[in-house]
Amino acid sequence: MTFSGQIDDALRADLLVTAEAMADAARAAILPHFRAADLDAENKAEGGFDPVTVADRAAERAMLDVLAKQRPTDGVLGEEYGTQAGESGLTWVLDPIDGTRGFLSGVPTWGVLIAVGDDTGPVLGVIDQPYIGERFLGGLGAAWCDGPLGRRPLKARAPRPLGEAILYTTFPEIGTESEAAAFRRVASQVRLIRYGTDCYAYALIAAGQIDLVIEAGLKAYDIQGPMAVIEAAGGVVTDWQGGPVHRGGQVLAAANADIHRDALKLLRG
Amino acid sequence: MTFSGQIDDALRADLLVTAEAMADAARAAILPHFRAADLDAENKAEGGFDPVTVADRAAERAMLDVLAKQRPTDGVLGEEYGTQAGESGLTWVLDPIDGTRGFLSGVPTWGVLIAVGDDTGPVLGVIDQPYIGERFLGGLGAAWCDGPLGRRPLKARAPRPLGEAILYTTFPEIGTESEAAAFRRVASQVRLIRYGTDCYAYALIAAGQIDLVIEAGLKAYDIQGPMAVIEAAGGVVTDWQGGPVHRGGQVLAAANADIHRDALKLLRG
Repeated sequence: MTFSGQIDDALRADLLVTAEAMADAARAAILPHFRAADLDAENKAEGGFDPVTVADRAAERAMLDVLAKQRPTDGVLGEEYGTQAGESGLTWVLDPIDGTRGFLSGVPTWGVLIAVGDDTGPVLGVIDQPYIGERFLGGLGAAWCDGPLGRRPLKARAPRPLGEAILYTTFPEIGTESEAAAFRRVASQVRLIRYGTDCYAYALIAAGQIDLVIEAGLKAYDIQGPMAVIEAAGGVVTDWQGGPVHRGGQVLAAANADIHRDALKLLRG
Repeated sequence: MTFSGQIDDALRADLLVTAEAMADAARAAILPHFRAADLDAENKAEGGFDPVTVADRAAERAMLDVLAKQRPTDGVLGEEYGTQAGESGLTWVLDPIDGTRGFLSGVPTWGVLIAVGDDTGPVLGVIDQPYIGERFLGGLGAAWCDGPLGRRPLKARAPRPLGEAILYTTFPEIGTESEAAAFRRVASQVRLIRYGTDCYAYALIAAGQIDLVIEAGLKAYDIQGPMAVIEAAGGVVTDWQGGPVHRGGQVLAAANADIHRDALKLLRG
């Protein structure tokens, strides 16, 4: 659905308040389960390790409850409970716990991902890390992080050569063989590559700490929140062909247009 | 030096208070530099990426100041300022920022490592994460984490088969070729392997969240703090031959004796 209205000050304020209320609700739902001794995962994917926790579902449910109360005519696309069509033209895209493997091992680099927008992409996004108490929010004129050091503006870093860049990805074994080869063409050129930070790596681009995140096989709800936050901080997020990526797939997230161009060239081969 | 005295209640209390005061001082010294825009690294190792920051030195200096005031006769082995001989038989082993690569990219999985003991190993250790505000402390009867959720006891998890275990390490390319091969023998058997969490992974063993950490090429100051914390929580930390590892080298840290034995067997080949 495409939003045909205009985002005026009242709607902007309403979306910001709703997004924060959803993130608050998700935090409250998740935290009692993080590092809980009895935490255990079901196996969603047959034979694979794709944990879904009680926390995951409780958090999405808590966010849906906020929406039902505050913005009942918006649509929803959630990781756990799927799609609900709306009438307003705006849709919320939710991943209650992005990085369930990190969650299950106690590392606070997982996050609650929230985005709102339409079929052309998100206009506002949130990456929330409940345990650290850190919220990255970007879009509709906002770009800030509320965290242990107070509120700080988000600003992606200035261009630098690939040879001085920091690249993050979740797994060393990224996607298919040809995807892995493309990834290595970039990885071999950068100064530092690090693994395993889940959605937190996208937040670090927005916070001006790293230059690139490259991943494959993402869903819409994995990327829309991060995408809005990074774009609001001045970064660039596309697929590996330089096209729109809000529906998911292969993701190239960059701190600025220059390093995005350099990485894209190598990804294309 | 070997400590020939006895750790009575008064000395125990003094060591705990001193360790906490050092961790507090390191936090205060480091936090203004974390995620600072002007942060830049020197290259300590020629041609390599071994960043030493202003924060690293300021934190070790701050900890040395605490020691000079509170325990002037103890010895020190620090990452930045080296060895100071003492007279008490006790030596503090300090790594002001373990995980400088994580630090430089903004991920709060680096930590301040503090240990005190003698040439037979540490009796007390601290892993402190200043940004999260989380402190893992173990030894002399203590085993707890003070963090965002309050104080919680540390207890490493119960035995489980390797096929259900979670293994962490910092880099996929671990040490030499034969070290990498040994590592892969274990890695190929576990349920989940994750990379890039620096010293935080050791804290996660103590917190009962993961089962194994395997690393190579560590220094005494990289492992003594984590070792004391894990042992206090019921875990086992040795080298890859099952021997003492407080002087550094190849490290196998395990949640319990059973999984330690299983991993050790595979590491030995």
